[in-house]
Amino acid sequence: MSFSESMTGMKRTHMCTALTEEHIDENVTIMGWVQKRRDLGGVIFLDVRDRTGLLQVVVDISSIGDEGFKKSEKIRTEFVIAVKGLVEKRTEETINTNLQTGTIEVRAMELRILSDAETPPFQIEENSSVREDLRLKYRYLDLRRPDLQKKLMLRSKLTEVVRSFMSEEGFVDLETPMLTKSTPEGARDYLVPSRVNPGNFYALPQSPQIFKQLLMLSGFDKYYQIVKCFRDEDLRADRQPEFTQIDIEMSFVDEDDVMNMNERLLAKMFKEVMDVDIALPIKRLTYQEAMDRFGSDKPDLRFGMELVNISDIVKDSDFKVFSGAVANGGSVRGINAKTCGDMPRRQIDALGEAAVSYGAKGMAWIAINEDGTYKSAITKFLSEEIVEAMVAALEGQPGDLLLFCADKNEVVYNTLGNLRLDIAKRLDLLKKDVFDFVWVTDFPLVEWNPEQKRYTAMHHMFTMPKEEDMELMTTDISKVRSRAYDICLNGNEIGGGSLRIHQREVQERVFEALGFSEEDAYDRFGFLLDAFRYGVPPHGGLAYGLDRIAMLMTGSDSIRDVIAFPKVKDASCPMTSAPGVVEEKQLEELAIRIDKIEL
Amino acid sequence: MSFSESMTGMKRTHMCTALTEEHIDENVTIMGWVQKRRDLGGVIFLDVRDRTGLLQVVVDISSIGDEGFKKSEKIRTEFVIAVKGLVEKRTEETINTNLQTGTIEVRAMELRILSDAETPPFQIEENSSVREDLRLKYRYLDLRRPDLQKKLMLRSKLTEVVRSFMSEEGFVDLETPMLTKSTPEGARDYLVPSRVNPGNFYALPQSPQIFKQLLMLSGFDKYYQIVKCFRDEDLRADRQPEFTQIDIEMSFVDEDDVMNMNERLLAKMFKEVMDVDIALPIKRLTYQEAMDRFGSDKPDLRFGMELVNISDIVKDSDFKVFSGAVANGGSVRGINAKTCGDMPRRQIDALGEAAVSYGAKGMAWIAINEDGTYKSAITKFLSEEIVEAMVAALEGQPGDLLLFCADKNEVVYNTLGNLRLDIAKRLDLLKKDVFDFVWVTDFPLVEWNPEQKRYTAMHHMFTMPKEEDMELMTTDISKVRSRAYDICLNGNEIGGGSLRIHQREVQERVFEALGFSEEDAYDRFGFLLDAFRYGVPPHGGLAYGLDRIAMLMTGSDSIRDVIAFPKVKDASCPMTSAPGVVEEKQLEELAIRIDKIEL
Repeated sequence: MSFSESMTGMKRTHMCTALTEEHIDENVTIMGWVQKRRDLGGVIFLDVRDRTGLLQVVVDISSIGDEGFKKSEKIRTEFVIAVKGLVEKRTEETINTNLQTGTIEVRAMELRILSDAETPPFQIEENSSVREDLRLKYRYLDLRRPDLQKKLMLRSKLTEVVRSFMSEEGFVDLETPMLTKSTPEGARDYLVPSRVNPGNFYALPQSPQIFKQLLMLSGFDKYYQIVKCFRDEDLRADRQPEFTQIDIEMSFVDEDDVMNMNERLLAKMFKEVMDVDIALPIKRLTYQEAMDRFGSDKPDLRFGMELVNISDIVKDSDFKVFSGAVANGGSVRGINAKTCGDMPRRQIDALGEAAVSYGAKGMAWIAINEDGTYKSAITKFLSEEIVEAMVAALEGQPGDLLLFCADKNEVVYNTLGNLRLDIAKRLDLLKKDVFDFVWVTDFPLVEWNPEQKRYTAMHHMFTMPKEEDMELMTTDISKVRSRAYDICLNGNEIGGGSLRIHQREVQERVFEALGFSEEDAYDRFGFLLDAFRYGVPPHGGLAYGLDRIAMLMTGSDSIRDVIAFPKVKDASCPMTSAPGVVEEKQLEELAIRIDKIEL
Repeated sequence: MSFSESMTGMKRTHMCTALTEEHIDENVTIMGWVQKRRDLGGVIFLDVRDRTGLLQVVVDISSIGDEGFKKSEKIRTEFVIAVKGLVEKRTEETINTNLQTGTIEVRAMELRILSDAETPPFQIEENSSVREDLRLKYRYLDLRRPDLQKKLMLRSKLTEVVRSFMSEEGFVDLETPMLTKSTPEGARDYLVPSRVNPGNFYALPQSPQIFKQLLMLSGFDKYYQIVKCFRDEDLRADRQPEFTQIDIEMSFVDEDDVMNMNERLLAKMFKEVMDVDIALPIKRLTYQEAMDRFGSDKPDLRFGMELVNISDIVKDSDFKVFSGAVANGGSVRGINAKTCGDMPRRQIDALGEAAVSYGAKGMAWIAINEDGTYKSAITKFLSEEIVEAMVAALEGQPGDLLLFCADKNEVVYNTLGNLRLDIAKRLDLLKKDVFDFVWVTDFPLVEWNPEQKRYTAMHHMFTMPKEEDMELMTTDISKVRSRAYDICLNGNEIGGGSLRIHQREVQERVFEALGFSEEDAYDRFGFLLDAFRYGVPPHGGLAYGLDRIAMLMTGSDSIRDVIAFPKVKDASCPMTSAPGVVEEKQLEELAIRIDKIEL
């Protein structure tokens, strides 16, 4: 049987850490959870916690009387209490410099137990090392951790800063539907069966893309929304079935207008939330440059170790692994892992295995000893001249480790791009307090989808092709570049956008190039193509992954840390155990049946 | 074949109505839609529209040259154009006082057609009288109407004001899940089949109720969120399957704390958005008082016409319709429709028919003629003394019409409450620019559900019973009052909330009283009851219907006017035609089948 007193007649006067030495001798009422209780016999010390921090309460029989003292003896960790008392200065020897309120304490005159508590399944403490599955089952307790609370409060502050900026810039906050139509392409939709129209389904939006374009067509000029989006995909560390986008769209703009506005937004976000100054303008790389130099379309610029193309150096060598790759239209490239020349052989082998996991057939390497000699399994296949040229190209110095990959370009990029990150991690170059932004532009309009044996949109189907590539649309669509741009931070794509197609013919041509029949395109997007008949302004926009930005700002390793109630790998919630079984009657109303029951 | 020029090399310098006489002789670039085009032969006038309003452009062959002029001859309504030109003062006789920019015009020096347009299916104009179904099919055109744009921009401003207030007051904006667990009670859930866990379903939230309570339990202290909620119910004028709530929860508070904070919020909302001053504190009525005086738990206080209980006057009369109702535990009550004494008989009969539609067996009435005599079908059954007492009780004056209803109390309340509104509407007492607020408190905890033959929660299952009624919980739950409160505006419930149960025993007792077995309650709310073991602060909150507030602020007749892309009666979207048929493969992945296909 639990025990709880009413708070009737009591009003909280202060949050715990609002009390300072200025309040000494004042009567105050504080309320919160008991973090710790120390019984010194005759005097009980209680550390009381609220969202602002801790405050020490002294319960002394001489101040509170017999009954109050007896009550306080029942108190355990995580009890919720209300304390009316007097703020007092601590004696020199009891001052706790680790505590914001460490120079004062509250002497209890009246104490109520508002709620008792069983011993929680784990202790409430910063940087808990408790298993995540247990913490997520008891998420309401996990969320009592001050570090987690701070992260969610930072996220709240972040959205506030975004909203105030967007409003100052004249953007209108407009809500778009959650119950909408299933879209082809992109990821898998979450579906919602309709009761009123049996056999029909809504889809939860993967993004408000079409709606925000229609709002531009309506003349709202500047739209933004912080909005939940949904993708029914298998989860990775930084993915959730539902996630939050900062969604932006503008009319009568070109790339520079969108990018400039967003740079101001990012600068404001990082200044006001993190007190970090971002140097503007943010660097820009084309997609091709990003791939050539960093092996990634979301390059991490916190460190160098850029890719170097040595194809010309090795293309005529007798080492077929190298010359063959070049001859087949691929390339040979390398990176210089500075100071890693003394890496033990088994660690180098581990890098080689990683390279294979990234798609390469293998990894070649040259370690430069301190005396300038080489350790390598490939130098013997190459002329001294070529080896020297390779080392020179990578600016190899004694103590460096040079890694090479020879294959089709996409394999080389992916392998070296990832090895670059692995080595940076090992060398501790990925500083969490450095925030390095870069725009990546000029993406290919389409990419080859080997499963579906057709081209699919790289950004999305509404992305405008570059004017100068328009002629390639019918001759070689794979070469068409788009007016898309991603904004990357420390190797993470935190946002992406594009100028949109605003001419119906161009939109139809893109549908066609992506293999949609006219009928198909109309079935799915008829209303958009119809809308395009009635006067469309040039427009473009961008969408940020809010969860990911909050994750990077808080230095978290997972977006789960910046989501109050996240899902786990199988898209379930360990706390509510959603998804769950529903009543037969509910399914009947929706006119659906579960397949496996039928089998 | 449509026609469109690129805007490359052009930058908009001003929105249309940003231009004033101060800009005369300046070179500007404006962009927008052509509202109207007048060709005066050699000179073409274009009214250009953007979200701020209209601006007149003059295209004169002498300024723009042959080619530019030819282009401008192609321009039709809703074309999107960009105009570079010179701001000029209009001559006295061409000044348009109806237009904000009516004293100036822009002389075009360069003109581009950014997008042509077919003739739209209806004209873009304020207060369109076009059929709503056509407007909703072409919602993107409907949304070009300045009145509709203003409404949505007001809504955006409203949320901005709410957010800034909540932040100042220390509330944390926390997102709760959209994919969650189906809840019993309340309305019907929208379900989302799980692919990873076949046969299992998420539900879209009807409200974040449980999550916000858990956030209080976690110690976030003050939570708010502006959040989409979902109910799969048949639609009425002011209902949508998805709607937006301003959701608020606070810890360590009582009713007054919650109500005071919300009064400040409402005052700020109406001041900053509408420039309307709300007199604080807002009036409070108990549920019983509201029913007795206004026949409604969401009373409209913009006018009087209060219900008067005349049961004592008529209980011993020979008129069985009256005395019988009182004898059966019901009552006889009346309202005075001032100045309606000369209402034609067929209109009075129509009121009687309305009364029947509200559940009454009939409606009695006395019209007081200007000479003080009565016109009535019931006075003959009543003594003169009783008739005089009835008239006196209702303060009847010559020219008044007195309406009476005799039945069970709930029927009398509902009938007279609705007749009161009907008459107020007829007398034009429902002024849209008057904003009259009232709190309704002390609701019954439960109400009898005749279908399910059991009590269901009137507010919701987490509502705290009044302390002084706690003993009735086991003896007569129908008499228990709750610590719930609704905030009403002009006869609309715009928000509601309560103090929540924070003791596990009380919560279990309520589940029991509502007919949940212990097992059942645990099945559904186990995680909440478990959470209650670990220290729960007293807490309470409130949720507003944002759509409804925006509707009332904008004087709209439907919430569809303040939603960018609303659904219609069958919960479908006429524009996207969602919900729609999906591919068989999608259903296979979800392991569900459509019933009707199986039949």
